[in-house]
Amino acid sequence: MHLRFPSACDIGQHDFAGILDTIHDEVRRRLGEGRQADYIQALAKVPLDGFGMALVLRDGRVFEVGRARHRFTIQSISKVHTLTLALDAVGDALWERVDREPSGDAFNSLIQLEYEKGIPRNPFMNAGALVVADVVLSSCSDARSRLLAFMRARSGNTAVACDEGVARSEADTGHRNLALAHFIKSYGNLHNPVEDVLDFYYHQCALSMDCVDLARSMQYLAGNGHCSVSGEQVVSGELATRINALMMTAGTYDAAGDFAFYVGLPAKSGVGGGIVAVVPHVLSLCVWYPGLDDKGNSLLGRYALHRFSRMTGLSVF
Amino acid sequence: MHLRFPSACDIGQHDFAGILDTIHDEVRRRLGEGRQADYIQALAKVPLDGFGMALVLRDGRVFEVGRARHRFTIQSISKVHTLTLALDAVGDALWERVDREPSGDAFNSLIQLEYEKGIPRNPFMNAGALVVADVVLSSCSDARSRLLAFMRARSGNTAVACDEGVARSEADTGHRNLALAHFIKSYGNLHNPVEDVLDFYYHQCALSMDCVDLARSMQYLAGNGHCSVSGEQVVSGELATRINALMMTAGTYDAAGDFAFYVGLPAKSGVGGGIVAVVPHVLSLCVWYPGLDDKGNSLLGRYALHRFSRMTGLSVF
Amino acid sequence: MHLRFPSACDIGQHDFAGILDTIHDEVRRRLGEGRQADYIQALAKVPLDGFGMALVLRDGRVFEVGRARHRFTIQSISKVHTLTLALDAVGDALWERVDREPSGDAFNSLIQLEYEKGIPRNPFMNAGALVVADVVLSSCSDARSRLLAFMRARSGNTAVACDEGVARSEADTGHRNLALAHFIKSYGNLHNPVEDVLDFYYHQCALSMDCVDLARSMQYLAGNGHCSVSGEQVVSGELATRINALMMTAGTYDAAGDFAFYVGLPAKSGVGGGIVAVVPHVLSLCVWYPGLDDKGNSLLGRYALHRFSRMTGLSVF
Amino acid sequence: MHLRFPSACDIGQHDFAGILDTIHDEVRRRLGEGRQADYIQALAKVPLDGFGMALVLRDGRVFEVGRARHRFTIQSISKVHTLTLALDAVGDALWERVDREPSGDAFNSLIQLEYEKGIPRNPFMNAGALVVADVVLSSCSDARSRLLAFMRARSGNTAVACDEGVARSEADTGHRNLALAHFIKSYGNLHNPVEDVLDFYYHQCALSMDCVDLARSMQYLAGNGHCSVSGEQVVSGELATRINALMMTAGTYDAAGDFAFYVGLPAKSGVGGGIVAVVPHVLSLCVWYPGLDDKGNSLLGRYALHRFSRMTGLSVF
Repeated sequence: MHLRFPSACDIGQHDFAGILDTIHDEVRRRLGEGRQADYIQALAKVPLDGFGMALVLRDGRVFEVGRARHRFTIQSISKVHTLTLALDAVGDALWERVDREPSGDAFNSLIQLEYEKGIPRNPFMNAGALVVADVVLSSCSDARSRLLAFMRARSGNTAVACDEGVARSEADTGHRNLALAHFIKSYGNLHNPVEDVLDFYYHQCALSMDCVDLARSMQYLAGNGHCSVSGEQVVSGELATRINALMMTAGTYDAAGDFAFYVGLPAKSGVGGGIVAVVPHVLSLCVWYPGLDDKGNSLLGRYALHRFSRMTGLSVF
Repeated sequence: MHLRFPSACDIGQHDFAGILDTIHDEVRRRLGEGRQADYIQALAKVPLDGFGMALVLRDGRVFEVGRARHRFTIQSISKVHTLTLALDAVGDALWERVDREPSGDAFNSLIQLEYEKGIPRNPFMNAGALVVADVVLSSCSDARSRLLAFMRARSGNTAVACDEGVARSEADTGHRNLALAHFIKSYGNLHNPVEDVLDFYYHQCALSMDCVDLARSMQYLAGNGHCSVSGEQVVSGELATRINALMMTAGTYDAAGDFAFYVGLPAKSGVGGGIVAVVPHVLSLCVWYPGLDDKGNSLLGRYALHRFSRMTGLSVF
Repeated sequence: MHLRFPSACDIGQHDFAGILDTIHDEVRRRLGEGRQADYIQALAKVPLDGFGMALVLRDGRVFEVGRARHRFTIQSISKVHTLTLALDAVGDALWERVDREPSGDAFNSLIQLEYEKGIPRNPFMNAGALVVADVVLSSCSDARSRLLAFMRARSGNTAVACDEGVARSEADTGHRNLALAHFIKSYGNLHNPVEDVLDFYYHQCALSMDCVDLARSMQYLAGNGHCSVSGEQVVSGELATRINALMMTAGTYDAAGDFAFYVGLPAKSGVGGGIVAVVPHVLSLCVWYPGLDDKGNSLLGRYALHRFSRMTGLSVF
Repeated sequence: MHLRFPSACDIGQHDFAGILDTIHDEVRRRLGEGRQADYIQALAKVPLDGFGMALVLRDGRVFEVGRARHRFTIQSISKVHTLTLALDAVGDALWERVDREPSGDAFNSLIQLEYEKGIPRNPFMNAGALVVADVVLSSCSDARSRLLAFMRARSGNTAVACDEGVARSEADTGHRNLALAHFIKSYGNLHNPVEDVLDFYYHQCALSMDCVDLARSMQYLAGNGHCSVSGEQVVSGELATRINALMMTAGTYDAAGDFAFYVGLPAKSGVGGGIVAVVPHVLSLCVWYPGLDDKGNSLLGRYALHRFSRMTGLSVF
């Protein structure tokens, strides 16, 4: 009865290959802009000489340009997948432990937690992701295997694995995350030991995937909960809708307003340089460029998504 | 070549009349819930015994239930219209004086202004709306007439007028707004006298309209900038997209995340009990119920929009 | 029974004249340092070529160096005197409307007010001084005359008067104070019209006095409540003690900790460049130099008090 | 030639024994008021049926009432002693790592740290005390022995020891302190491992002493740096003055303004129910009562100090 969604043939009239080539030409001239995340040693050394982009239609067709097969650590993009696992495990009870509002400010991380008594503002802030990780840990005996299996099923790539070097690198300099975790724990909002929560968190962030993997891994959010890669109904259509909504209002750190304004698609970024985005009912995509802007989002990734949305008119607004 | 948008006949298959009737039945049982805005004397007395809802399709067809023809003061809904006028007047230069990010917290109003040196977080917070009002004032000789003409053209109703009693009532108890305006002025971000800015602001808030008027007044945002009521191209398609994005991330006070999650439509609420919403490319709508929830949004209005979005599947996500 | 206080002859053994000369020699080499308060136009033009200091013993003897007879506007120093008048009028009831704690941070002015629902942290912040001014206004029919008479009696100088030019200059650029006053008013913590409160406040700040006047005006706080100038018991000994305590913890803006640490005397500063200080039971003093440090206190004034306290050993600690 | 300080015979005229008896009579009627610190399990069980007070003159005479020989854990009172050790070790370089201003608000603990990039506001907040502990740890090979030796020398009691049960109890529930320490570490302002800093910190807090011990341990701050117990010059007179100043502006959590106002003496409190205070050049004292007020200070201890200061007139103001 929902006749709003375009049919495959409608979408087929977009020249996605041409659009991606145009974007690739534009960003190529700007390689080198932005800065790598410097607080994780393993990321600070990545050269700024490559860009990749991949797009996956509901019918499975893939369009890609540049280093779309280059693997990088997905970092905060993983928060979408762990949120899905947590909601699958506990349902709406999750919202008693984490809120659904934009965070407002970068500096809010700990400040807001203190005002709000240990309830993170949303599942995509670090604080919220730690609570989500705690829920996943509590819900299964081997959370890391569970997440890895989920990722491999969603991406259709059994080679997806954790980059242990990056995971260790994050753990080594993670005093801020330790502070955050102990602070939440002091409010009783972590049930597992801080060390276990952070261990899982660092491993989810260090999952290594490429643009095609990640674009595919978002298919269930582009497909009303149905994953075209595995053929499974991963979550209900309503839940897919809601996760997309959360990405729109909180998926890109403090730049959610700016992303809605310039891109107009649900998206989730990571400091590894990746950004995934979803055109509900139509397609999912992923861009990668490791130079970040001052909000921590991939600088050319954001630009590429802006151009994509403008050229195709596929903003949700 | 944007083939994504459904044709009129597609949409026609939705039984909007039936859906509105169902919603009306559901909310009727809950009349009395919520609380009137009590800081404006004129609003505190409105009884909680009525609900109205109106929907306007791109082809001009109107569906309505309940007190859809009952007039109320539009309050913060007017911020969408003044933002449109301000962007029309100064374009992107507006963004040097007001930001586009969610505000984060209710208590942030003045706090955030102090941190961010007089630059409001977005044009829909009171602080941001005062800067927008200042821009409109500077851009034309008779701002009140300009706004009134705009509203009458958008709604197709020449009887739209300001409720002077409510405007006076707001001015009488407006020490907080005076504080806000002088505070912004102290940072040099108001160019007109504080009294003039507030006078205009109180009049825009006190515009009296009904659900049908307001749903129609949003047609240009449902129509890629084209107003189906007047036949005018009010703003560019791109600008319409962006205003919708701002409504999504900042249109419902501190509940923007919650609205995106449960409703999934760009929306703007007012403490008079109205909420307007847009299904881009498809329709615009308005609900009214003067009992507010603890975030200041119409309690049954929010519920009605949630139900509408679920029953039609017309969430943007 | 309180034998702790030194007798006049003990104190006489300090070579105050020599100490003041030494200090004068030291500061003379540093004239020009610091910056005038620039937000009040009348103060921004004062040259940084003069320094004055005066000291008044309990027996009435005066020691002075430099421009101790140069008149300047006392600005926030007046808050000590209006606090005295307010406590005289309403006693401990004042503390229901203003607290007695240090403010913590410069940026707290409005922020803290919002957290604490319109109750200023102490009577020496601008917000607190406005509430104090409101209390004084409510307690007598002609508050400005009352304060002027009080100042003339305390200083023994009938020529003390308000510098109307400076008062107007402050009012002209007073959007921040207007914001503050309306904000407090919105919480119901100002009983008089905002305009009246600010008018009184600007006049108290614009009182023009010299170092000898001001040092004398503090005699009642050095004398257990007894003013040696007029021979009157102005307040009880206990109240004098408490006002001194408030100056110690909140008298020098955000530098109260620093002042206690380096100077060790109850003191109150003003952006006109004056600082008064009290050695309880012994003497009162005043320094003036219009170049301020980054906390808004007279740069050489602070230095002179530090040196005075070290050379005499007259820190209260 | 500081003739301000009273001679022993002057002070002898105070009837300290009688004054302490009067205070004891007054507080006895109020036993049971206040609440034990409940976040440390070992403290939560202490009955509210005892009060102790001890006073030590410069000549060594001791006056005491009630349970002045009852041992309790000194908790935050130890921050005075570790500050002394840290200043002894690194001098003014300490002030590059911790500030000297009042903290403003209880909730500021982490918030302020975030604004101020890991520099605690003063050495008596938990955050500041952790930095001080870190400095002490870096300055000697066995910090716990060093502190214990210092405490025994200051109190003249070789039986002073750590209550290991309380230390463990604090460590068990110390997620907030872990958060604080990791947060400071993330700014590079802890040089030793977080575990080592907290281990030392919990042991300093769990030192078990009685009122007489603690009053004696403050003699060096009442004696211009000279400890009358050991006969040693512990710090310079100027440093003693400054530590007293810090106690005045920051020694009693968020109630420093209130303490200055009602007591008027440099003081440091602990959640174990102890409060030490100093009358510079005259005497040191300690009160104990484990029922706390809502700011975390001993309720009857504060009252006893207030009465003492009023009855003797020995406020510094």
